[in-house]
Amino acid sequence: MKKKNVPKAVIKRLPKYHRFLKEQINQDVVRISSRQISQAMGFTASQIRQDLNNFGDFGQQGYGYNVEDLYANISKILGINKTYSVAIVGAGNLGTAISNYTQFDRLGFKINAIFDVNPCIVGKSIGLLEVQHMDKFEEEVEKHGIEIVYLCTNMEAAQAVAERVENAGVKGILNFAPTDLVMKTDIYVENTYLIDKLLSISYHLKVRSTENDG
Amino acid sequence: MKKKNVPKAVIKRLPKYHRFLKEQINQDVVRISSRQISQAMGFTASQIRQDLNNFGDFGQQGYGYNVEDLYANISKILGINKTYSVAIVGAGNLGTAISNYTQFDRLGFKINAIFDVNPCIVGKSIGLLEVQHMDKFEEEVEKHGIEIVYLCTNMEAAQAVAERVENAGVKGILNFAPTDLVMKTDIYVENTYLIDKLLSISYHLKVRSTENDG
Repeated sequence: MKKKNVPKAVIKRLPKYHRFLKEQINQDVVRISSRQISQAMGFTASQIRQDLNNFGDFGQQGYGYNVEDLYANISKILGINKTYSVAIVGAGNLGTAISNYTQFDRLGFKINAIFDVNPCIVGKSIGLLEVQHMDKFEEEVEKHGIEIVYLCTNMEAAQAVAERVENAGVKGILNFAPTDLVMKTDIYVENTYLIDKLLSISYHLKVRSTENDG
Repeated sequence: MKKKNVPKAVIKRLPKYHRFLKEQINQDVVRISSRQISQAMGFTASQIRQDLNNFGDFGQQGYGYNVEDLYANISKILGINKTYSVAIVGAGNLGTAISNYTQFDRLGFKINAIFDVNPCIVGKSIGLLEVQHMDKFEEEVEKHGIEIVYLCTNMEAAQAVAERVENAGVKGILNFAPTDLVMKTDIYVENTYLIDKLLSISYHLKVRSTENDG
């Protein structure tokens, strides 16, 4: 695989290719051209070829891409040709919903521990796991080799919990709390910011109603 | 307000400005320069001035921006100087979590109805609302003037529900189901794609572990 700095925009598009190719596999598609990908996904064929060329030479002139191969390659690029050990902190409705999100599990993100501090929630069963008290967090992170935490606490608790997650040596956080986390190390944080999505809807509804008025 | 096509990238940044300014208001900051916004948010000062100039002339030379005014203006641009009537379809853990997400409510997105088809869930109380059967969906959409639906069903049900939402005249969908919806009209769909976020984490963890190996 070529080693170079891949543009952020390309990396952002990779999950879309990954999702699209998975759908093709489910529909028993064996090979596909950049033009066909282009028609289905709305990027230009040349952009698709350029995107995928960042990672090596997957396509063949006149044949296109082998769907299974391309999917396996993009999986490898995305780092999901392995299993990740995951913990959830915050076992309220959101944490429970995320723990039931089988898509994550299917891609190799295995939830091995769930934590909360609420005495009404600690001890409860979620799937095959029992919600544990945060007192046991560091111990369990070590025991299960936890690499990623889904942070599902409320906004107020999020920063303090994130620091504890960082100190325990976890490498990545998927942050569902609507707040910006300030980290000291290079732990990787990905924010969900559901609010931004909602504001994007209100913006578009407003623009449309203005167009209709004008 | 100027009427022109605002670049998509600018619109994507607006919620970030909005969130940042709200934090400044909470900290009693009265005015702020583009340089200060730049230092806090990591965009260049000239980009910030350029972004905000898309919507009119908010800043004053040598003074900077009045935080309250800028916040109010961006709220208006984002279409959240009004209240939206919202319904949730799918009252499982995710739907329940989203209905408890007070941030949405505070910005003017008011949940007026919650629906499900599961007989174990229909009739249950979530906050002040009772979960209703989808049989009543169209009737309730009309009664409450529902403009936005948070789609919290499973992947399998999502497309059929989305079509029903579209036919009922709803204008926007915030889609939590991990699937691409195909719509017939110009109903605005915003996808959450939590998986893409998770793949972004695995990608970065992989890149780092490769760097450490090398």
